[in-house]
Amino acid sequence: MPLEIPEVVIDRLPVYFRLLSRMRAAGETVVSSQELGEALGVTPAQIRKDLSYFGRFGKQGRGYSVERLVEELRAILGLDHGWRLVVVGMGRLGQAIASYQGFGAQGFTIAALYDTDADVIGEHVEGIEVRDVRHLEADLRDLEVDVGVVAVPAEHAQAVIDSMVRAGIRAVLNYAPMAAQVPSDVEVRQVDPVLQLQSMTYHLTRRDAAAPQPSIAR
Amino acid sequence: MPLEIPEVVIDRLPVYFRLLSRMRAAGETVVSSQELGEALGVTPAQIRKDLSYFGRFGKQGRGYSVERLVEELRAILGLDHGWRLVVVGMGRLGQAIASYQGFGAQGFTIAALYDTDADVIGEHVEGIEVRDVRHLEADLRDLEVDVGVVAVPAEHAQAVIDSMVRAGIRAVLNYAPMAAQVPSDVEVRQVDPVLQLQSMTYHLTRRDAAAPQPSIAR
Repeated sequence: MPLEIPEVVIDRLPVYFRLLSRMRAAGETVVSSQELGEALGVTPAQIRKDLSYFGRFGKQGRGYSVERLVEELRAILGLDHGWRLVVVGMGRLGQAIASYQGFGAQGFTIAALYDTDADVIGEHVEGIEVRDVRHLEADLRDLEVDVGVVAVPAEHAQAVIDSMVRAGIRAVLNYAPMAAQVPSDVEVRQVDPVLQLQSMTYHLTRRDAAAPQPSIAR
Repeated sequence: MPLEIPEVVIDRLPVYFRLLSRMRAAGETVVSSQELGEALGVTPAQIRKDLSYFGRFGKQGRGYSVERLVEELRAILGLDHGWRLVVVGMGRLGQAIASYQGFGAQGFTIAALYDTDADVIGEHVEGIEVRDVRHLEADLRDLEVDVGVVAVPAEHAQAVIDSMVRAGIRAVLNYAPMAAQVPSDVEVRQVDPVLQLQSMTYHLTRRDAAAPQPSIAR
Protein backbone atom coordinates (compact mmCIF):
# COMPACT_ATOMS: atom_id res chain seq x y z
CA MET A 1 0.00 0.00 0.00
CA PRO A 2 1.44 3.42 -0.83
CA LEU A 3 2.02 5.67 2.13
CA GLU A 4 -0.03 8.56 0.79
CA ILE A 5 -3.59 7.91 -0.23
CA PRO A 6 -5.49 11.10 -1.11
CA GLU A 7 -7.84 12.28 1.65
CA VAL A 8 -10.79 12.31 -0.75
CA VAL A 9 -10.23 8.60 -1.40
CA ILE A 10 -9.95 7.81 2.31
CA ASP A 11 -13.20 9.65 2.90
CA ARG A 12 -14.93 7.41 0.34
CA LEU A 13 -13.65 4.11 1.76
CA PRO A 14 -16.22 4.01 4.60
CA VAL A 15 -18.96 4.44 2.01
CA TYR A 16 -17.61 1.45 0.07
CA PHE A 17 -17.33 -0.52 3.28
CA ARG A 18 -20.95 0.14 4.24
CA LEU A 19 -22.33 -0.75 0.81
CA LEU A 20 -20.24 -3.90 0.52
CA SER A 21 -21.19 -5.01 4.04
CA ARG A 22 -24.85 -4.76 3.03
CA MET A 23 -24.15 -6.70 -0.17
CA ARG A 24 -22.41 -9.43 1.80
CA ALA A 25 -25.31 -9.60 4.26
CA ALA A 26 -27.61 -9.99 1.24
CA GLY A 27 -25.56 -12.97 0.07
CA GLU A 28 -23.80 -11.32 -2.87
CA THR A 29 -20.33 -12.71 -3.55
CA VAL A 30 -19.01 -10.80 -6.58
CA VAL A 31 -19.53 -7.18 -7.59
CA SER A 32 -18.39 -5.17 -10.61
CA SER A 33 -17.10 -1.60 -10.59
CA GLN A 34 -20.15 -0.86 -12.73
CA GLU A 35 -22.53 -2.07 -10.00
CA LEU A 36 -20.62 -0.26 -7.27
CA GLY A 37 -20.60 2.90 -9.34
CA GLU A 38 -24.34 2.77 -9.98
CA ALA A 39 -25.11 2.19 -6.30
CA LEU A 40 -22.93 5.10 -5.23
CA GLY A 41 -23.54 7.54 -8.07
CA VAL A 42 -19.94 7.65 -9.29
CA THR A 43 -18.29 6.32 -12.43
CA PRO A 44 -16.91 2.76 -12.59
CA ALA A 45 -13.56 4.33 -13.50
CA GLN A 46 -13.58 6.24 -10.21
CA ILE A 47 -14.31 3.05 -8.28
CA ARG A 48 -11.46 1.20 -9.99
CA LYS A 49 -9.10 4.10 -9.40
CA ASP A 50 -10.00 4.40 -5.71
CA LEU A 51 -9.59 0.70 -5.06
CA SER A 52 -6.37 0.55 -7.08
CA TYR A 53 -4.62 2.49 -4.30
CA PHE A 54 -4.72 -0.75 -2.37
CA GLY A 55 -3.56 -2.70 -5.37
CA ARG A 56 -4.77 -6.14 -4.45
CA PHE A 57 -8.47 -6.34 -5.16
CA GLY A 58 -10.41 -7.27 -8.30
CA LYS A 59 -9.36 -8.25 -11.77
CA GLN A 60 -10.63 -6.41 -14.83
CA GLY A 61 -13.65 -8.17 -16.28
CA ARG A 62 -14.06 -10.56 -13.36
CA GLY A 63 -15.35 -8.19 -10.71
CA TYR A 64 -14.38 -7.95 -7.06
CA SER A 65 -14.89 -10.51 -4.34
CA VAL A 66 -17.37 -8.88 -1.94
CA GLU A 67 -16.05 -10.85 1.02
CA ARG A 68 -12.45 -9.96 0.33
CA LEU A 69 -13.20 -6.28 -0.24
CA VAL A 70 -15.17 -6.09 3.01
CA GLU A 71 -12.39 -7.70 4.98
CA GLU A 72 -9.63 -5.64 3.36
CA LEU A 73 -11.54 -2.40 3.91
CA ARG A 74 -12.25 -3.39 7.50
CA ALA A 75 -8.53 -3.83 8.11
CA ILE A 76 -7.53 -0.69 6.18
CA LEU A 77 -10.04 1.44 8.08
CA GLY A 78 -9.05 -0.04 11.42
CA LEU A 79 -12.53 -1.41 12.05
CA ASP A 80 -11.33 -4.84 13.11
CA HIS A 81 -11.12 -3.63 16.68
CA GLY A 82 -13.37 -1.36 18.75
CA TRP A 83 -12.99 2.37 19.35
CA ARG A 84 -13.98 4.35 22.41
CA LEU A 85 -15.65 7.77 22.40
CA VAL A 86 -16.48 10.43 24.95
CA VAL A 87 -19.28 12.89 24.27
CA VAL A 88 -19.11 16.38 25.77
CA GLY A 89 -22.37 18.34 25.82
CA MET A 90 -25.63 16.68 26.84
CA GLY A 91 -28.12 19.06 25.30
CA ARG A 92 -30.65 17.75 22.80
CA LEU A 93 -27.93 17.10 20.25
CA GLY A 94 -25.61 15.33 22.71
CA GLN A 95 -28.47 13.15 23.89
CA ALA A 96 -29.34 12.22 20.31
CA ILE A 97 -25.67 11.32 19.76
CA ALA A 98 -25.48 9.27 22.97
CA SER A 99 -28.57 7.30 21.99
CA TYR A 100 -27.67 6.81 18.33
CA GLN A 101 -27.60 3.08 17.70
CA GLY A 102 -25.43 3.43 14.61
CA PHE A 103 -22.23 3.96 16.63
CA GLY A 104 -22.35 0.77 18.65
CA ALA A 105 -23.31 -1.27 15.60
CA GLN A 106 -20.04 -0.17 13.95
CA GLY A 107 -17.79 -0.79 16.95
CA PHE A 108 -17.81 2.72 18.44
CA THR A 109 -18.53 2.51 22.17
CA ILE A 110 -19.35 5.54 24.30
CA ALA A 111 -17.10 5.45 27.36
CA ALA A 112 -18.27 8.61 29.14
CA LEU A 113 -20.57 11.63 28.90
CA TYR A 114 -19.98 15.19 30.15
CA ASP A 115 -21.86 18.42 30.66
CA THR A 116 -21.56 21.66 32.62
CA ASP A 117 -25.20 21.88 33.72
CA ALA A 118 -25.73 20.92 37.38
CA ASP A 119 -29.25 19.72 36.49
CA VAL A 120 -27.83 17.21 34.01
CA ILE A 121 -24.70 16.09 35.86
CA GLY A 122 -25.40 12.84 37.69
CA GLU A 123 -28.31 11.96 35.39
CA HIS A 124 -28.04 8.86 33.23
CA VAL A 125 -28.27 8.86 29.43
CA GLU A 126 -28.41 5.42 27.85
CA GLY A 127 -27.24 3.98 31.14
CA ILE A 128 -24.15 6.18 31.37
CA GLU A 129 -23.83 8.77 34.13
CA VAL A 130 -23.21 12.32 32.96
CA ARG A 131 -20.11 13.71 34.65
CA ASP A 132 -19.01 17.27 35.31
CA VAL A 133 -16.89 18.45 32.39
CA ARG A 134 -14.34 19.68 34.94
CA HIS A 135 -13.30 16.04 35.31
CA LEU A 136 -12.86 15.54 31.56
CA GLU A 137 -9.14 16.04 31.27
CA ALA A 138 -8.25 13.93 34.31
CA ASP A 139 -10.69 11.18 33.27
CA LEU A 140 -9.31 11.01 29.76
CA ARG A 141 -5.89 10.10 31.07
CA ASP A 142 -7.38 6.86 32.48
CA LEU A 143 -10.22 6.05 30.11
CA GLU A 144 -8.26 4.99 27.01
CA VAL A 145 -10.52 6.97 24.75
CA ASP A 146 -9.80 7.28 21.03
CA VAL A 147 -12.23 9.94 19.85
CA GLY A 148 -13.65 13.05 21.51
CA VAL A 149 -17.14 14.05 20.35
CA VAL A 150 -17.95 17.74 20.83
CA ALA A 151 -21.62 18.71 21.14
CA VAL A 152 -21.34 21.97 23.07
CA PRO A 153 -22.26 25.47 21.83
CA ALA A 154 -19.73 26.97 19.39
CA GLU A 155 -18.37 29.46 21.91
CA HIS A 156 -17.30 26.69 24.30
CA ALA A 157 -16.08 24.17 21.75
CA GLN A 158 -12.46 25.26 21.39
CA ALA A 159 -11.86 25.06 25.16
CA VAL A 160 -13.29 21.53 25.23
CA ILE A 161 -11.17 20.50 22.24
CA ASP A 162 -8.06 21.99 23.86
CA SER A 163 -8.72 19.88 26.99
CA MET A 164 -9.14 16.77 24.87
CA VAL A 165 -5.91 17.40 22.99
CA ARG A 166 -3.97 18.09 26.21
CA ALA A 167 -5.21 14.76 27.53
CA GLY A 168 -3.90 12.92 24.47
CA ILE A 169 -6.99 12.63 22.25
CA ARG A 170 -5.93 12.42 18.59
CA ALA A 171 -9.32 12.39 16.86
CA VAL A 172 -12.19 14.85 17.32
CA LEU A 173 -15.68 14.65 15.89
CA ASN A 174 -16.93 18.21 16.13
CA TYR A 175 -20.67 19.00 16.00
CA ALA A 176 -20.15 22.63 17.07
CA PRO A 177 -20.49 25.07 14.18
CA MET A 178 -16.95 26.46 14.33
CA ALA A 179 -13.56 25.71 12.77
CA ALA A 180 -11.64 23.78 15.43
CA GLN A 181 -7.96 24.59 15.87
CA VAL A 182 -5.85 21.51 16.59
CA PRO A 183 -2.20 20.46 16.27
CA SER A 184 -1.30 18.85 12.97
CA ASP A 185 -1.22 15.35 14.48
CA VAL A 186 -4.89 15.55 15.54
CA GLU A 187 -7.65 14.55 13.12
CA VAL A 188 -10.86 16.59 13.13
CA ARG A 189 -14.08 15.92 11.28
CA GLN A 190 -16.97 18.35 11.34
CA VAL A 191 -20.61 17.26 11.43
CA ASP A 192 -22.34 20.37 10.22
CA PRO A 193 -25.62 20.19 8.35
CA VAL A 194 -25.70 23.94 7.73
CA LEU A 195 -22.48 23.80 5.71
CA GLN A 196 -23.94 20.95 3.70
CA LEU A 197 -27.18 22.84 3.10
CA GLN A 198 -25.20 25.86 1.95
CA SER A 199 -23.21 23.84 -0.54
CA MET A 200 -26.53 22.67 -2.00
CA THR A 201 -28.04 26.14 -2.18
CA TYR A 202 -25.08 27.08 -4.35
CA HIS A 203 -26.34 24.56 -6.89
CA LEU A 204 -30.02 25.42 -6.42
CA THR A 205 -29.21 29.07 -7.05
CA ARG A 206 -27.31 28.32 -10.24
CA ARG A 207 -30.15 26.14 -11.47
CA ASP A 208 -32.91 28.63 -10.65
CA ALA A 209 -30.95 31.40 -12.36
CA ALA A 210 -30.17 29.20 -15.34
CA ALA A 211 -33.63 27.83 -15.98
CA PRO A 212 -35.57 30.88 -17.14
CA GLN A 213 -32.63 32.81 -18.60
CA PRO A 214 -29.75 30.55 -19.51
CA SER A 215 -27.58 33.45 -20.60
CA ILE A 216 -27.42 34.80 -17.03
CA ALA A 217 -25.71 31.70 -15.68
CA ARG A 218 -22.21 32.75 -14.65
CA MET B 1 -17.23 33.44 -12.85
CA PRO B 2 -16.39 30.23 -14.69
CA LEU B 3 -19.24 27.79 -15.14
CA GLU B 4 -17.49 24.87 -13.50
CA ILE B 5 -16.09 25.33 -10.02
CA PRO B 6 -14.75 22.09 -8.51
CA GLU B 7 -17.11 20.50 -5.96
CA VAL B 8 -14.37 20.47 -3.32
CA VAL B 9 -14.09 24.25 -3.62
CA ILE B 10 -17.85 24.73 -3.44
CA ASP B 11 -17.90 22.61 -0.29
CA ARG B 12 -15.35 24.93 1.32
CA LEU B 13 -17.17 28.17 0.49
CA PRO B 14 -19.69 27.82 3.36
CA VAL B 15 -16.74 27.43 5.74
CA TYR B 16 -15.21 30.67 4.43
CA PHE B 17 -18.59 32.36 4.69
CA ARG B 18 -19.04 31.37 8.32
CA LEU B 19 -15.56 32.43 9.39
CA LEU B 20 -15.77 35.76 7.53
CA SER B 21 -19.22 36.48 8.96
CA ARG B 22 -17.76 36.05 12.44
CA MET B 23 -14.83 38.31 11.56
CA ARG B 24 -17.19 40.98 10.29
CA ALA B 25 -19.30 40.71 13.45
CA ALA B 26 -16.07 41.20 15.42
CA GLY B 27 -15.39 44.42 13.53
CA GLU B 28 -12.56 43.18 11.30
CA THR B 29 -12.41 44.87 7.91
CA VAL B 30 -9.41 43.33 6.09
CA VAL B 31 -8.07 39.76 6.18
CA SER B 32 -5.07 38.12 4.53
CA SER B 33 -4.97 34.68 2.97
CA GLN B 34 -2.41 33.90 5.68
CA GLU B 35 -4.93 34.68 8.46
CA LEU B 36 -7.73 32.78 6.72
CA GLY B 37 -5.41 29.84 6.20
CA GLU B 38 -4.37 29.74 9.84
CA ALA B 39 -7.95 29.93 11.08
CA LEU B 40 -9.04 27.10 8.78
CA GLY B 41 -5.96 24.91 8.86
CA VAL B 42 -5.20 25.16 5.15
CA THR B 43 -2.38 26.87 3.28
CA PRO B 44 -2.67 30.52 2.20
CA ALA B 45 -2.03 29.30 -1.35
CA GLN B 46 -5.14 27.12 -1.13
CA ILE B 47 -7.20 30.06 0.09
CA ARG B 48 -6.00 32.26 -2.77
CA LYS B 49 -6.65 29.51 -5.30
CA ASP B 50 -10.16 28.81 -4.00
CA LEU B 51 -11.15 32.47 -4.01
CA SER B 52 -9.56 33.03 -7.41
CA TYR B 53 -12.37 31.00 -9.00
CA PHE B 54 -14.51 34.02 -8.40
CA GLY B 55 -11.83 36.32 -9.70
CA ARG B 56 -12.86 39.57 -8.13
CA PHE B 57 -11.73 39.56 -4.50
CA GLY B 58 -8.44 40.58 -2.87
CA LYS B 59 -5.25 41.96 -4.25
CA GLN B 60 -1.91 40.34 -3.52
CA GLY B 61 -0.28 41.96 -0.51
CA ARG B 62 -3.31 44.05 0.42
CA GLY B 63 -5.58 41.36 1.79
CA TYR B 64 -9.28 40.87 1.22
CA SER B 65 -12.12 43.15 2.26
CA VAL B 66 -14.06 41.12 4.83
CA GLU B 67 -17.30 42.94 4.02
CA ARG B 68 -16.98 42.37 0.31
CA LEU B 69 -16.04 38.70 0.69
CA VAL B 70 -19.01 38.07 2.98
CA GLU B 71 -21.41 39.72 0.58
CA GLU B 72 -19.99 38.01 -2.50
CA LEU B 73 -20.04 34.61 -0.81
CA ARG B 74 -23.59 35.22 0.38
CA ALA B 75 -24.66 35.88 -3.20
CA ILE B 76 -22.63 33.00 -4.67
CA LEU B 77 -24.05 30.54 -2.15
CA GLY B 78 -27.59 31.80 -2.62
CA LEU B 79 -27.91 32.83 1.01
CA ASP B 80 -29.35 36.23 0.23
CA HIS B 81 -32.81 34.73 0.32
CA GLY B 82 -34.43 32.14 2.59
CA TRP B 83 -34.79 28.43 1.96
CA ARG B 84 -37.54 26.12 3.13
CA LEU B 85 -37.07 22.60 4.50
CA VAL B 86 -39.28 19.68 5.39
CA VAL B 87 -38.11 17.08 7.87
CA VAL B 88 -39.35 13.49 7.57
CA GLY B 89 -38.85 11.30 10.64
CA MET B 90 -39.61 12.62 14.11
CA GLY B 91 -37.57 10.19 16.22
CA ARG B 92 -34.92 11.53 18.55
CA LEU B 93 -32.75 12.59 15.60
CA GLY B 94 -35.60 14.31 13.76
CA GLN B 95 -36.61 16.16 16.91
CA ALA B 96 -33.02 17.33 17.43
CA ILE B 97 -32.99 18.54 13.81
CA ALA B 98 -36.34 20.31 14.16
CA SER B 99 -35.17 22.12 17.27
CA TYR B 100 -31.68 22.99 16.00
CA GLN B 101 -31.35 26.76 16.18
CA GLY B 102 -28.53 26.84 13.65
CA PHE B 103 -30.85 26.36 10.68
CA GLY B 104 -33.09 29.37 11.30
CA ALA B 105 -30.11 31.59 12.06
CA GLN B 106 -28.79 30.88 8.56
CA GLY B 107 -32.06 31.40 6.72
CA PHE B 108 -33.27 27.79 6.60
CA THR B 109 -36.89 27.62 7.76
CA ILE B 110 -38.67 24.38 8.56
CA ALA B 111 -41.97 24.37 6.69
CA ALA B 112 -43.37 20.99 7.78
CA LEU B 113 -42.62 17.84 9.77
CA TYR B 114 -43.66 14.24 9.03
CA ASP B 115 -43.70 10.84 10.67
CA THR B 116 -45.41 7.48 10.33
CA ASP B 117 -46.05 6.89 14.04
CA ALA B 118 -49.67 7.48 15.06
CA ASP B 119 -48.46 8.49 18.54
CA VAL B 120 -46.37 11.30 17.07
CA ILE B 121 -48.66 12.50 14.26
CA GLY B 122 -50.66 15.51 15.46
CA GLU B 123 -48.09 16.36 18.15
CA HIS B 124 -46.20 19.66 17.89
CA VAL B 125 -42.44 19.96 17.69
CA GLU B 126 -41.11 23.50 17.96
CA GLY B 127 -44.63 24.75 17.28
CA ILE B 128 -45.05 22.76 14.07
CA GLU B 129 -47.62 19.99 13.85
CA VAL B 130 -46.26 16.61 12.80
CA ARG B 131 -48.20 15.32 9.81
CA ASP B 132 -48.70 11.80 8.49
CA VAL B 133 -46.00 11.06 5.94
CA ARG B 134 -48.72 9.81 3.63
CA HIS B 135 -49.48 13.47 2.94
CA LEU B 136 -45.87 14.31 2.12
CA GLU B 137 -45.98 14.11 -1.64
CA ALA B 138 -49.26 16.02 -1.99
CA ASP B 139 -48.15 18.66 0.54
CA LEU B 140 -44.84 19.23 -1.23
CA ARG B 141 -46.61 20.29 -4.39
CA ASP B 142 -48.09 23.26 -2.48
CA LEU B 143 -45.47 24.06 0.14
CA GLU B 144 -42.72 25.53 -2.07
CA VAL B 145 -40.07 23.57 -0.24
CA ASP B 146 -36.45 23.64 -1.42
CA VAL B 147 -34.79 20.91 0.64
CA GLY B 148 -36.03 17.59 1.98
CA VAL B 149 -34.39 16.42 5.20
CA VAL B 150 -34.49 12.65 5.74
CA ALA B 151 -34.27 11.39 9.33
CA VAL B 152 -35.96 8.01 9.00
CA PRO B 153 -34.37 4.56 9.47
CA ALA B 154 -32.15 3.46 6.57
CA GLU B 155 -34.61 0.87 5.30
CA HIS B 156 -37.31 3.52 4.74
CA ALA B 157 -35.12 6.32 3.46
CA GLN B 158 -35.14 5.55 -0.27
CA ALA B 159 -38.95 5.48 -0.40
CA VAL B 160 -39.11 8.88 1.32
CA ILE B 161 -36.48 10.31 -1.03
CA ASP B 162 -38.36 8.93 -4.05
CA SER B 163 -41.52 10.70 -2.87
CA MET B 164 -39.63 13.94 -2.43
CA VAL B 165 -38.09 13.71 -5.89
CA ARG B 166 -41.45 12.91 -7.52
CA ALA B 167 -42.87 16.01 -5.85
CA GLY B 168 -40.14 18.19 -7.33
CA ILE B 169 -37.58 18.44 -4.50
CA ARG B 170 -34.10 19.03 -5.97
CA ALA B 171 -31.99 18.96 -2.79
CA VAL B 172 -31.93 16.26 -0.11
CA LEU B 173 -30.09 16.32 3.21
CA ASN B 174 -29.92 12.66 4.16
CA TYR B 175 -29.28 11.60 7.76
CA ALA B 176 -30.13 7.95 7.08
CA PRO B 177 -27.04 5.72 6.88
CA MET B 178 -27.51 4.61 3.27
CA ALA B 179 -26.42 5.75 -0.20
CA ALA B 180 -29.43 7.58 -1.63
CA GLN B 181 -30.27 7.02 -5.28
CA VAL B 182 -31.44 10.18 -7.03
CA PRO B 183 -31.64 11.52 -10.58
CA SER B 184 -28.59 13.48 -11.72
CA ASP B 185 -30.37 16.83 -11.34
CA VAL B 186 -30.99 16.26 -7.61
CA GLU B 187 -28.33 17.24 -5.06
CA VAL B 188 -27.80 14.98 -2.06
CA ARG B 189 -25.64 15.57 0.99
CA GLN B 190 -25.15 12.93 3.64
CA VAL B 191 -24.90 13.73 7.35
CA ASP B 192 -23.25 10.62 8.66
CA PRO B 193 -21.02 10.69 11.73
CA VAL B 194 -20.10 7.02 11.41
CA LEU B 195 -18.52 7.59 8.00
CA GLN B 196 -16.55 10.48 9.47
CA LEU B 197 -15.43 8.40 12.44
CA GLN B 198 -14.31 5.66 10.08
CA SER B 199 -12.23 8.04 8.00
CA MET B 200 -10.47 9.07 11.24
CA THR B 201 -9.85 5.51 12.41
CA TYR B 202 -8.00 4.99 9.15
CA HIS B 203 -5.51 7.60 10.33
CA LEU B 204 -5.47 6.42 13.94
CA THR B 205 -4.67 2.91 12.78
CA ARG B 206 -1.79 4.09 10.59
CA ARG B 207 -0.42 6.16 13.44
CA ASP B 208 -0.69 3.42 16.06
CA ALA B 209 1.04 1.03 13.72
CA ALA B 210 3.70 3.54 12.78
CA ALA B 211 4.64 4.75 16.25
CA PRO B 212 6.30 1.71 17.83
CA GLN B 213 7.54 0.11 14.63
CA PRO B 214 7.89 2.62 11.81
CA SER B 215 8.90 -0.04 9.31
CA ILE B 216 5.46 -1.68 9.57
CA ALA B 217 3.68 1.38 8.21
CA ARG B 218 2.35 0.47 4.80
